[in-house]
Amino acid sequence: MWQLFQFPLCPFSRKVRLLLGEKGIGYDLVRENPWERRDEFFDLNPAGQTPVIVETEKALVLMDSGAICEYFEETVEKAPMINGTAPNRAEIRRLVAWCDQQFYGDVTAPLMFERMTKRLVHRSTPDARILREAMKNAHRHLDYLDYLLDHRTWLAGATLSLADLSAAAHLSVADYLGGIDFKGHEQARRWYAGLKSRPGFRPLLSERMEGIQPPAHYDKPDF
Amino acid sequence: MWQLFQFPLCPFSRKVRLLLGEKGIGYDLVRENPWERRDEFFDLNPAGQTPVIVETEKALVLMDSGAICEYFEETVEKAPMINGTAPNRAEIRRLVAWCDQQFYGDVTAPLMFERMTKRLVHRSTPDARILREAMKNAHRHLDYLDYLLDHRTWLAGATLSLADLSAAAHLSVADYLGGIDFKGHEQARRWYAGLKSRPGFRPLLSERMEGIQPPAHYDKPDF
Ligand SMILES: N[C@@H](CCC(=O)N[C@@H](CS)C(=O)NCC(=O)O)C(=O)O
Ligand SMILES: N[C@@H](CCC(=O)N[C@@H](CS)C(=O)NCC(=O)O)C(=O)O
Repeated sequence: MWQLFQFPLCPFSRKVRLLLGEKGIGYDLVRENPWERRDEFFDLNPAGQTPVIVETEKALVLMDSGAICEYFEETVEKAPMINGTAPNRAEIRRLVAWCDQQFYGDVTAPLMFERMTKRLVHRSTPDARILREAMKNAHRHLDYLDYLLDHRTWLAGATLSLADLSAAAHLSVADYLGGIDFKGHEQARRWYAGLKSRPGFRPLLSERMEGIQPPAHYDKPDF
Repeated sequence: MWQLFQFPLCPFSRKVRLLLGEKGIGYDLVRENPWERRDEFFDLNPAGQTPVIVETEKALVLMDSGAICEYFEETVEKAPMINGTAPNRAEIRRLVAWCDQQFYGDVTAPLMFERMTKRLVHRSTPDARILREAMKNAHRHLDYLDYLLDHRTWLAGATLSLADLSAAAHLSVADYLGGIDFKGHEQARRWYAGLKSRPGFRPLLSERMEGIQPPAHYDKPDF
């Protein structure tokens, strides 16, 4: 059985979980707070980051969400998520990188720091200016999703791919933290509603991070 | 013919160039300074980042160095650089991610900002404290390379892989900017000397960024 080291609001772990869900792969969750910088966790992953996924019987320890997703894509045929011609696959991967770097850096990471890390670790209050900036960035990035969805059913083309799972992972964490307003983003809203209703997304949406409540619409299929 | 949009000290472009070199794929260089934020460049890559690689005849525009490398790995058989069993491939990819995120974030990026961006864009002087911190981080990360090379010929195992190319790309930029001291890192030094003497590395080492001189040892096979 696979064991996934993660915490409920880690977007990279959510991306992996959505992929495992689509592929029908079971796993146990192991709670890891990377900000505690446990020595034993650094022994598993020298980068000290979640997610890490472990299969003890096969003596496998995989880390970095990108490497983990490619691994399951290569070893499990069901529900291919990096699919199509080489240019299609490049488009999927560049959108995953866009989510994991641009959306994460401009939206998810500042929201996580201001509304999660400050509360749980530093016991200080969020900086309203940084929150405003992150929410402005979210609108700009949602515009980009709208633009992609004007031409495509899913973010990278005609079929569901890892690009959608990655975008939904970041969006869901940002939404949990009150940073997402879908007003004016009908394309993105419809697309996200479709993802929310997938069976693999349901368990994620029902989990809570201790001490932090999501807005009422967070886990609603209609929002 | 492929056209690569890049500037001489972009480590992600260097990773792609080292891969193209190993695979024997020709390309023209197009100079792009992402800090100028040209509208035409944002039309190519909404993330506004180098590298972007374009093949006009095939109407292909690829971006994000990870997606670009996977594309050439999938389409060109020669000199496989993400090779082996699925766990081997996961190890290569997590080390590439480690270089592109940990080494870049802790070493290459601060050196680039302090010694390149400040000079070329802000016309201000580097912050000695940040430089010292980056160089300390470089030692810590070189220790990790030494540790890997205690057990392995190349970073990810018995054969040259994209992990080596990515590490060499970042190391070479950091070295150009005076941030690398190999004293006490004999394993890493020997490994890097082997990479420096590869034909694909030579053209990179002979290029200069205007207004910034590398240290004397920078392009020497013996250093
Ligand atoms: N490239 C990594 C990034 C993972 C990452 O940034 N994880 C965060 C939590 S969401 C973390 O562990 N941060 C702690 C740290 O960087 O020290 C991946 O894709 O898995
Ligand atoms: N994930 C990207 C990162 C590329 C990147 O950070 N490029 C830098 C130059 S070394 C850049 O264009 N920075 C400008 C910016 O981020 O606005 C890749 O692997 O290609």
